[in-house]
Amino acid sequence: MVVCLNPKTTKEDVDKIISYIKDMGLDVQVTEGQQSTILGLIGDTSKIDPNTLMMNVHVDKVMRVAEPFKKASRTFNPVDTVVKVGNAEIGNRKKFTVIAGPCSVENHDQIVEVAESVKNSGATLLRGGAFKPRTSPYSFQGLELEGLELLKEAKANTGLPIVTEIMSPKMVEKFESDVDIIQVGARNMQNFDLLKELGKASKPILLKRGLSATIEEWLMSAEYIMAGGNENVILCERGIRTFETYTRNTLDLSAIPAVKKLSHLPVVVDPSHSAGRRWMVEPLSLAAMAIGADGLIVEVHNCPEKALCDGAQSLDPKQFDDLMTKLRNMGKNLGIEV
Amino acid sequence: MVVCLNPKTTKEDVDKIISYIKDMGLDVQVTEGQQSTILGLIGDTSKIDPNTLMMNVHVDKVMRVAEPFKKASRTFNPVDTVVKVGNAEIGNRKKFTVIAGPCSVENHDQIVEVAESVKNSGATLLRGGAFKPRTSPYSFQGLELEGLELLKEAKANTGLPIVTEIMSPKMVEKFESDVDIIQVGARNMQNFDLLKELGKASKPILLKRGLSATIEEWLMSAEYIMAGGNENVILCERGIRTFETYTRNTLDLSAIPAVKKLSHLPVVVDPSHSAGRRWMVEPLSLAAMAIGADGLIVEVHNCPEKALCDGAQSLDPKQFDDLMTKLRNMGKNLGIEV
Amino acid sequence: MVVCLNPKTTKEDVDKIISYIKDMGLDVQVTEGQQSTILGLIGDTSKIDPNTLMMNVHVDKVMRVAEPFKKASRTFNPVDTVVKVGNAEIGNRKKFTVIAGPCSVENHDQIVEVAESVKNSGATLLRGGAFKPRTSPYSFQGLELEGLELLKEAKANTGLPIVTEIMSPKMVEKFESDVDIIQVGARNMQNFDLLKELGKASKPILLKRGLSATIEEWLMSAEYIMAGGNENVILCERGIRTFETYTRNTLDLSAIPAVKKLSHLPVVVDPSHSAGRRWMVEPLSLAAMAIGADGLIVEVHNCPEKALCDGAQSLDPKQFDDLMTKLRNMGKNLGIEV
Amino acid sequence: MVVCLNPKTTKEDVDKIISYIKDMGLDVQVTEGQQSTILGLIGDTSKIDPNTLMMNVHVDKVMRVAEPFKKASRTFNPVDTVVKVGNAEIGNRKKFTVIAGPCSVENHDQIVEVAESVKNSGATLLRGGAFKPRTSPYSFQGLELEGLELLKEAKANTGLPIVTEIMSPKMVEKFESDVDIIQVGARNMQNFDLLKELGKASKPILLKRGLSATIEEWLMSAEYIMAGGNENVILCERGIRTFETYTRNTLDLSAIPAVKKLSHLPVVVDPSHSAGRRWMVEPLSLAAMAIGADGLIVEVHNCPEKALCDGAQSLDPKQFDDLMTKLRNMGKNLGIEV
Repeated sequence: MVVCLNPKTTKEDVDKIISYIKDMGLDVQVTEGQQSTILGLIGDTSKIDPNTLMMNVHVDKVMRVAEPFKKASRTFNPVDTVVKVGNAEIGNRKKFTVIAGPCSVENHDQIVEVAESVKNSGATLLRGGAFKPRTSPYSFQGLELEGLELLKEAKANTGLPIVTEIMSPKMVEKFESDVDIIQVGARNMQNFDLLKELGKASKPILLKRGLSATIEEWLMSAEYIMAGGNENVILCERGIRTFETYTRNTLDLSAIPAVKKLSHLPVVVDPSHSAGRRWMVEPLSLAAMAIGADGLIVEVHNCPEKALCDGAQSLDPKQFDDLMTKLRNMGKNLGIEV
Repeated sequence: MVVCLNPKTTKEDVDKIISYIKDMGLDVQVTEGQQSTILGLIGDTSKIDPNTLMMNVHVDKVMRVAEPFKKASRTFNPVDTVVKVGNAEIGNRKKFTVIAGPCSVENHDQIVEVAESVKNSGATLLRGGAFKPRTSPYSFQGLELEGLELLKEAKANTGLPIVTEIMSPKMVEKFESDVDIIQVGARNMQNFDLLKELGKASKPILLKRGLSATIEEWLMSAEYIMAGGNENVILCERGIRTFETYTRNTLDLSAIPAVKKLSHLPVVVDPSHSAGRRWMVEPLSLAAMAIGADGLIVEVHNCPEKALCDGAQSLDPKQFDDLMTKLRNMGKNLGIEV
Repeated sequence: MVVCLNPKTTKEDVDKIISYIKDMGLDVQVTEGQQSTILGLIGDTSKIDPNTLMMNVHVDKVMRVAEPFKKASRTFNPVDTVVKVGNAEIGNRKKFTVIAGPCSVENHDQIVEVAESVKNSGATLLRGGAFKPRTSPYSFQGLELEGLELLKEAKANTGLPIVTEIMSPKMVEKFESDVDIIQVGARNMQNFDLLKELGKASKPILLKRGLSATIEEWLMSAEYIMAGGNENVILCERGIRTFETYTRNTLDLSAIPAVKKLSHLPVVVDPSHSAGRRWMVEPLSLAAMAIGADGLIVEVHNCPEKALCDGAQSLDPKQFDDLMTKLRNMGKNLGIEV
Repeated sequence: MVVCLNPKTTKEDVDKIISYIKDMGLDVQVTEGQQSTILGLIGDTSKIDPNTLMMNVHVDKVMRVAEPFKKASRTFNPVDTVVKVGNAEIGNRKKFTVIAGPCSVENHDQIVEVAESVKNSGATLLRGGAFKPRTSPYSFQGLELEGLELLKEAKANTGLPIVTEIMSPKMVEKFESDVDIIQVGARNMQNFDLLKELGKASKPILLKRGLSATIEEWLMSAEYIMAGGNENVILCERGIRTFETYTRNTLDLSAIPAVKKLSHLPVVVDPSHSAGRRWMVEPLSLAAMAIGADGLIVEVHNCPEKALCDGAQSLDPKQFDDLMTKLRNMGKNLGIEV
């Protein structure tokens, strides 16, 4: 960690700050610049909050040098993490995993039909919302526990493992028993209470990036789960909030190579929610594969025109099948199996 | 709600969409524009998710006309809500409420000293973090339940009601009994599970705006709490995430008159967290009063140089006392009592 | 265009507004919603500024239905524009155009060497900065006119047409005679005076998207050039400004399919400037092809470690050659020639 | 400037980088951290572009310590710059300058009437657009040279000095002779060619902040003008582009104390353009005074309902007079004369 002091800091004050830092068990190296003094902090700075140092009136800037995450860091864990669930090997660079299913679970026939359909097209995991995070309290909130049961029926019919979103720490036990991958939504990425509970779970966690989360904050949320003992975290890029309004959010595909550089964790892309426009799902999906993502989580609906929620971005089974064909075709030359 | 169809939509498809909308119990008025057909939806559209309509391939744009919130809306409730706690009347435009205290509760002496000090300077409520949302799992997470006890001791000593942050739905009962205003942090603004629990609580809720939440989404989160039965919601602007890095976040002071126009709920400003620089707290506080905020929530620390967290933005008691004097002085000409 | 009035607008005021709109030569259709009156404006609304309507105190919201651009619009011009320069056919979906070269032109040997090298690897156009837009007045501003001469020498040696940035309307004549494609930088995207001058030019314009420009504003800037008579505009996505700091800017790849939907103009991607990190150039380039871009503009330097500016993102000739091989390989299965 | 190297950089490579930096005439101090080596660059780093250093594959992060601006910096020039024009003293902390007038100059009577009216209410400078930057080429572009003549007539009638926007370097001479303060619009903040020309002018420059410009970039644009010899630069905050759509832009009032800390230049606020809603102008103006701005630039129109452009945000003369009364009232207690 590097600390820059204000140009006018007296020698006495510099010494006080140095001894304060040394009291935290760190070593300090001093550089006298033309305008100001720069302190290099040597030692384990992961517990230090840069804001704490900024509190000192003589401190002008603080820059982290070492990454604040450890278990999620590729520096300390160079080998790719591969999360195996059913036939999927998420993180295996030779395989591209497609998780597909409807936005919301609606009824037995719907979820079973979609599950069979996406399985036939090549998806290896089934997604479907039982508990739905909705901006409005008056919107449909999902079938909740009944939705979980329906997902289990679809799994029984198809063998596809289930991915679904958790919204409350109270549900962790239930999800542990019923679900194969527990999804944390973008709005809960920094629901630290929930992350801590999931750190004790044994099921893999699919952690969506928050709408305004930096890549570093996203990895720190993964670190929360991993620090609790659950190291099977799958990251999911789903678009960030920017000024652009043509798309619902801006899919940050640059985040994929960034995450691959910084971390050993697998990362998948959600092309459905970011764009909010169905015809964008295919080009975004192809780009996700080309840029090095480990897979996709895609919305597919058997009857898009009547979906209860979020239908704008759902492919119908035919469109999904076409997408899978294009992914397989593109994967061939890249040495990636879909 | 207004729905614009694609230029190429056939008469047949327009009719299908109209009958789909009528099935939802709404009336439709059709306008044939030069390029495209526009549908005006008449009736209660609050349950309709614009995204559901966007799912239809013929739909190009959807614009909400009526506000999606009701209980939080000034249109339906023109009279200002005033939340009375202790001597404070938050929302009374003739009074300016100052909530002050340390970022984190650290020990008995600290919190009692700060409480006495801010009370003497004119604060009417005490803030202090017991459960701390921290980006890193390795950072200090607060004294938790012990912190709550210390806050109660400070309240016993000074009579100042307590404002502190809740992080888990499991703690609602405990907070109901111990705390006077329950704070929801920016990161939990869309933790809908928590909001629903707080809707059942009887204590007022201080709802911070999320880092990337629009004003409408913020009011919808208030609506979640109010829809559950708890109508004592105090909004708190604390800065939004933008590209500017000089300040930690960008305090959106325009949101104050916007909220006052759209809603009857009180709104206070947190000048400490947004800037992340202590010397900005005073000018931001004065601007908050000038623009019409109902009060402030300010960090004050008795020994800023040694604070365990977030000290960068904490005033010391002397600086806080000066701020109160300036607010009182400015309030005189505006007819506002501090 | 749809105009929503405030709920409390009187019948008399509604009538005044309607007659005001009719005076502009438009027809109006009125929809009485539950809360408010909605006006549908019928006719040519392209000259109307929504802000002009917002001026009326009774107007609450204005939504454009028809696109504000015409010459750039695919609605009015469904056939893809293909810009032919040298061997390049930018906009031909079966060909992928790669424009390559150094950030800045530095001297004869440098630019000739790079030009030969990128030509051998398969680039069909040479880029190189002669006039450099620099944030600081103290930074190197480019070789200016001398740089243009050196570019011409490189063209004479290799036959590669030249793409370089213009910064002043005073230089249009010079660029017309010396340059093959005139580049408008992101910072000048709304330098309307320059755009108008370029509308009179005969050379194609490569128009970079502004850092905070919406897709619509970008197309409106293209419209400025086209309205002046120059219809050979090539759009270039180069990253937008967001809160994320790991990358210099956030490459908005979703903008590619969006532009293809809204406009018939070709669109290329600049993977070098957005990321600001050399190792990201390759994955971003592959994603650009996969998502449907018409080509790339890539920085290549013969001696990256000594570049005078922006070297962070420049590939060396070997890295560029590898990139071209990967693009060709990927293009095969997509039916795209590189 | 501080440079952090990648953890795996070899001793040999570190030495190469050090000698490269020394070749630039700088001294280097090396700190060996736990993970990586940190270099402190000592000397005049203002000409070094951090991106140049980032080009080196071993460089991981670069942090500027010294400010990149000099003439605009308070560090080097601690005394407030006061720009005197007519009766205005912009930058004098005891005086608050109000610049007022219509968005566009439309005709003789309009501009003279508004000028007289705002003068009577206490404005000391007249604003009015002759050359208008419009997103659409089909929108009214201003009366141009005729508009300049009309402004001069209004000045002749009222004695109010004129502030108006320049859009082309070709017009600098004309503006020099006709205008009292030359305004650079937000879209041209990084039109470096124009800034360089204005550096040679003798009239003060009002430099609006770009929609996505950081405070540092804004000050660097001021530095461009000052480096050319024109040190009378007045900064103008007018809102930045964020995700919030309720307001047209987000007025960044925190930028006022930030600029006052970093620079000696005066800074005024434009409350009209940022909000895009007339009823927000008053609260934003009061907040601007409270936070320490040197003045305002406000749109006032004698007949808002018929304005050709941007009327949404224009006050009528009565509303402007009320605003001036409130500013005077508030200024009293702050010791500021309006």
